[in-house]
Amino acid sequence: MSKKEYTVPGFKAGAVAAGIRYQGRPDLALIISEVTAAAAGVFTTNKVQAAPVLLSRSHLTGNRARTIVVNSGIANACTGESGLQRARSTAQIVAEAVGCPIHEVLVASTGVIGMDLPLEPVSNYLPKLVSSVRDDGWLDAARAIMTTDTVPKIHIVRGLLQDCPFTVLGIAKGAGMISPDMATLLSFVATDAAISPDALQALAREETDRSFNRITVDGDTSTNDTLFILANGFAGNRPIENLDSSDGECLRRALGEVLLKLAKMIVADGEGATKFVEITVKGGSGQAEALLAARTVANSLLVKTALFGEDANWGRILAALGRAGVDLDPQRVQLFFNEVKLVEKGRAVGGDAETKVSKILKESSFSVTINLGQGKAEETVYTCDLSLDYVKINANYRS
Amino acid sequence: MSKKEYTVPGFKAGAVAAGIRYQGRPDLALIISEVTAAAAGVFTTNKVQAAPVLLSRSHLTGNRARTIVVNSGIANACTGESGLQRARSTAQIVAEAVGCPIHEVLVASTGVIGMDLPLEPVSNYLPKLVSSVRDDGWLDAARAIMTTDTVPKIHIVRGLLQDCPFTVLGIAKGAGMISPDMATLLSFVATDAAISPDALQALAREETDRSFNRITVDGDTSTNDTLFILANGFAGNRPIENLDSSDGECLRRALGEVLLKLAKMIVADGEGATKFVEITVKGGSGQAEALLAARTVANSLLVKTALFGEDANWGRILAALGRAGVDLDPQRVQLFFNEVKLVEKGRAVGGDAETKVSKILKESSFSVTINLGQGKAEETVYTCDLSLDYVKINANYRS
Repeated sequence: MSKKEYTVPGFKAGAVAAGIRYQGRPDLALIISEVTAAAAGVFTTNKVQAAPVLLSRSHLTGNRARTIVVNSGIANACTGESGLQRARSTAQIVAEAVGCPIHEVLVASTGVIGMDLPLEPVSNYLPKLVSSVRDDGWLDAARAIMTTDTVPKIHIVRGLLQDCPFTVLGIAKGAGMISPDMATLLSFVATDAAISPDALQALAREETDRSFNRITVDGDTSTNDTLFILANGFAGNRPIENLDSSDGECLRRALGEVLLKLAKMIVADGEGATKFVEITVKGGSGQAEALLAARTVANSLLVKTALFGEDANWGRILAALGRAGVDLDPQRVQLFFNEVKLVEKGRAVGGDAETKVSKILKESSFSVTINLGQGKAEETVYTCDLSLDYVKINANYRS
Repeated sequence: MSKKEYTVPGFKAGAVAAGIRYQGRPDLALIISEVTAAAAGVFTTNKVQAAPVLLSRSHLTGNRARTIVVNSGIANACTGESGLQRARSTAQIVAEAVGCPIHEVLVASTGVIGMDLPLEPVSNYLPKLVSSVRDDGWLDAARAIMTTDTVPKIHIVRGLLQDCPFTVLGIAKGAGMISPDMATLLSFVATDAAISPDALQALAREETDRSFNRITVDGDTSTNDTLFILANGFAGNRPIENLDSSDGECLRRALGEVLLKLAKMIVADGEGATKFVEITVKGGSGQAEALLAARTVANSLLVKTALFGEDANWGRILAALGRAGVDLDPQRVQLFFNEVKLVEKGRAVGGDAETKVSKILKESSFSVTINLGQGKAEETVYTCDLSLDYVKINANYRS
C-alpha cells in the first residue's frame, strides 16, 4: 500500500528527527485529531510504570483526548519525580502548540530505561512538528516510534457503519521485552467511527486481550506498554453505545483485525526473529489452561532455540507442557506442525512425518498445534524463535 | 583434588563407553554400595516424566537400594510402555550382575527426549562395568553422566559423627533445561553415615530445596531430573533418626554443602554460560515473595543477555521485578552489584557507581543484591548469563 492510502478522516500525523537520543532519524511522532475524540488506553501491567504511563493514565480519566505525542530512544522509566515532570512538560508544550487543554494530550515513550528525557529537543522541534502533520503522515509516525524494530508496522481497515464509510488505522512498535500482558509495545489507533468513550474503552480492553496479549518474543514485560485508541466520529454514524449491536460488532471486527495484524507484525519482527510461529493448544480442560499451556510452550527457551535451529524437537514441547501446570496426560497428547502429525499418544509417529516436518521448519512461518485431549478449550498465541541475533541485540542494547 | 581422594567407605563406582549414543566416551555409569543402603530420591516435578523416573520412584517405596545405574545420550523420556520396559530390563541386567533384588536398583537417564534406549549396549557392557567399579571410580562416573556439560561435577565433605569419621560425596550433571524444581539434572550422593531411611528422605527434600531448587539456567525443567542419596552406615555412628539432633545437624551441614556446591557448579557450567551470578532479594514481604522476585530476575532473558553483554542495565532488573507479581514500590528499591550501590529509591545513584559496576561485570562471578524495602525476607538464587553459545548449543542439540 502506498503512503497516500493511509489516512483517517479528521486525523493528521507526522514525525521529526529531534535528536532525543538517536541521530539522523525521526524520533518524535505526533497524532492530532481535528476535534476532541473519545479516547481509550490500555497500559502495561508491570508494577514499575514509566512516567508517560502514569501521566497518560491520569489524563484519560475523562476518556477524551485530542493528541498523542511519542518519543523513541528514551523510555522515561525509572526516572522518579523528575521523569514525571518531564512527561508533564512535554504534554504542556504539545497542548500549547496544538491549542488544547493539557489533559487532552496523551504521552508515550519507548527506549532505554533509567535515562532522563531531555526537554530541549521536544521544545525545539515540537512547534515545527505541529505545523507539519499531514493526512498521510502515518507511515512517518510509524517509523519514528521504532527502536530495534526493523520495519514500520501499520495496518488499515475500511468498512461501513449504517452506510457511513469508516476507517480504523493503527501503528505499532515492538521488537523486544515482548510478552503477554502488553510489552515494550506501543500502538496507536485512530478511527473516525463514532462511539461512546465507555464503549471504546471496553472494546480496547477486549480486543487487546485477543491480540497484543497473545504474543510473546522473550517473556519480559516492559514499563512503557501503551495502546491508545482515538475515535473522532467523523464517519457520521450514530455513536455506538452497545458493543453487542451490529454496529458494535462491525467496529469490533475492524478494530480486532487491525490490532491482531499489528500484533503479528510485532512477533514477526521480534528481535532477531527468523520464524513466526502460531501455537495453538486444543483439547484443554479450560480456556485458562489452554492459554497457559500455549504460553509456556511459546516462552520456552529450549523450544525457541530448536525453532531457530529448524529442529523438530517435539520432546522439548512436551517437556514445556509438562511444567506448565495444566492437566496433562502425556499418553493423550497429539502434536502437529501445520497439518502434519508428528506425535500421537505422547510418542513420535515415525514414518516420514519427521522428514515432512523438517521441511515445514525451514519455512519462515508455520503453526504448531497441540491437542491435550483433556477437554474442548482452544487458545492460540504467536511467538518467534530465539536466535543468535536476539542475544547480540540485547547484549549490546545500551552501547 | 586427585581422583584418589574421592572415596566413600563401602561404595564403588565406575563407568564404561557402551556406545549408547555417544561414540568413544564413557556413557554408562554404575554406583554400588557393598550392602543395602538407606536410599532417598527427589524427582522432577514435570508432569511428563521419563521412564527411569517412574521406575525408580516405584523402586524407592521401601527407601532402600544397593546400586544406581545411569546412562547419558538418551533420556528414555516420552517413550511410552516400551521405554518403561527398557528401563526395567536395564535394572534387571544390573540386578543379576550385582546380585541384588531388582527393586534395589535405581535407574537414571539423561540426553535426548523421545528416542528409544538401546538395550544391547547395556547388556553387552554392564557385566564388564560391574567387575571394574572401584573405590576411586567416582570421577569416571561423573564424566560418564555429562551431556553438554563441559566439566565433571564432584564434591566431597568429610566430618565426624559421634567421633566416627564420615564422608558425603556427590556427583552431578546439568548444563541445559535447568530451572528451579529440579532440571535435566542428575545428582548422586553417597555417604557412609548411618541414618534411618525416613530421616534420609526428609533430609534429601529439604536440602534439595536449598540447593538445586535455587538455580536456573534457562527456566525450562526436564523430564528426567533425579537426585539419589545412598547412606550405607559404614561410618559406624548410631543411626540418625532425628534431624534436629546434633548428629542430624552435622550430616545436614555436610550434605547441604555438597548439594549447594554441586548446584553452583551446574550454573557456572550452564550451557554457554560466561558469568555465574548470585541474585539475592532482601526486604521481601515474605519468603515466597523474595524467592519469586529473585527467580523472575534470574530467569529474565533481557537481564541475562545484559549480563552476557557486561551491561549494568539495572532498568531491566527493575522491569523484571515489576512483572514478578510481588509487593513492590519502585521508590523503595535499592540495587547493588557486589558491594556497589547502583540504584537508590528506584533511580541510578550516578557518580562513579556505573564505572565501578562495569568493572564488576567483567568478572566471571559476582552478586546482584536487591533490597525491596518491603519487609525482612531474604532469598538467594543462582543463575548465569544467556550467551550466543547457549543459542548455538540448543539450536543444534539433536544434530
